[in-house]
Amino acid sequence: MSQFPKTERNRVKRLPQRGYYDTETIYKILDEALICHVGFVENKEPFVIPINFARVDDAIILHGSKSSRLLKHIEAGKPVCIEATTLDGLVLARSVFHHSVNFRSVMLFGVGHSIEDEQEKISALKAITEHLIPGRWDDARIPNRKELIATQVVSIKIEEASAKIRTGLPSDDEEDYALPIWAGVLPIQEMTLPPIRDERLAGDVPLPGYIEKYSRGGKS
Amino acid sequence: MSQFPKTERNRVKRLPQRGYYDTETIYKILDEALICHVGFVENKEPFVIPINFARVDDAIILHGSKSSRLLKHIEAGKPVCIEATTLDGLVLARSVFHHSVNFRSVMLFGVGHSIEDEQEKISALKAITEHLIPGRWDDARIPNRKELIATQVVSIKIEEASAKIRTGLPSDDEEDYALPIWAGVLPIQEMTLPPIRDERLAGDVPLPGYIEKYSRGGKS
Repeated sequence: MSQFPKTERNRVKRLPQRGYYDTETIYKILDEALICHVGFVENKEPFVIPINFARVDDAIILHGSKSSRLLKHIEAGKPVCIEATTLDGLVLARSVFHHSVNFRSVMLFGVGHSIEDEQEKISALKAITEHLIPGRWDDARIPNRKELIATQVVSIKIEEASAKIRTGLPSDDEEDYALPIWAGVLPIQEMTLPPIRDERLAGDVPLPGYIEKYSRGGKS
Repeated sequence: MSQFPKTERNRVKRLPQRGYYDTETIYKILDEALICHVGFVENKEPFVIPINFARVDDAIILHGSKSSRLLKHIEAGKPVCIEATTLDGLVLARSVFHHSVNFRSVMLFGVGHSIEDEQEKISALKAITEHLIPGRWDDARIPNRKELIATQVVSIKIEEASAKIRTGLPSDDEEDYALPIWAGVLPIQEMTLPPIRDERLAGDVPLPGYIEKYSRGGKS
């Protein structure tokens, strides 16, 4: 288990006891999140875009259209901040002041580059597909040359990162514990609902096991 | 129903048919999301921070500690980009290329200011609490003067905003429909699990109805 350095950018300033800098904690949170939020600066102004992704070793892989503003920005070697958060529950304290949420969040910084090598590009797209739904790559029709050319893939090496985590029950002021106010946690979890078959799917195509068994909760 | 102007910042460039600019669509997405992702620029570098929030009319309310870097930035009148996204499902096409996710996302831009007036501050904190869990404000102990002083509250007027939405089944290339590959949507939804009582809660404090009936799915 290695650690990211604590810097002015990634140091958890508020409630530092909730901060983590080890790759194990950080990668686990990234690997569970389906969407990340990419911040970048254009014309001195901030932008945040939600996007699917995958982590491969110490890099974040993103993909999209060749015309994507975000991906052009990354291809040009400009820095990004990527954040991914899983909400785990509402923390209901006796006092409004101590209300909170349970969550696991990662914030990371890096500079990216475009992946141009065809084999490397295919591996990166496989990582994104498998991140979304493990088992899918070997089942679906993989990208042809035309699709590969139309797809921009970038890799962002994680230079600095930190995680912030809150778990557990509320923490009230001592004198408030006597108040007759319900307190506790209302857990929240992403769940899957039963799969919806495409209308044009032939009746004899069965639901694959990797979809039937897919579970958001089981990954945590 | 009013519309936000389309500008270079908020215009949905990729797949413009998925873009919406009306307040009804945008506010509904914001009101359902529990967390937003705030992008800002410091030392020319991008930062993205996840945070609870509330929408009040055409403004986003955020709160936190007086020492928060993000809130100091907003108090200083510097621009932010706020993004909120709800993931609704995995879209499994026959081809990897047409894989997607169903989602509802908002991106907005604005400049904020600190709320200093005590009554206005209390109203803003009430909005954040009620956004998290409707009914809670009237049940919990509301903030005292000391807590109000320790809390920074900011309001960001929404200057520009757009929503991007994808719904429905996959869209494959015509020649791929004949492939014997399962295709469809795996719906994803945030759900609540049974509430966990605080260990120090007296046995005779009942679970309030607004917690028992709380539903993430029902809001959409």
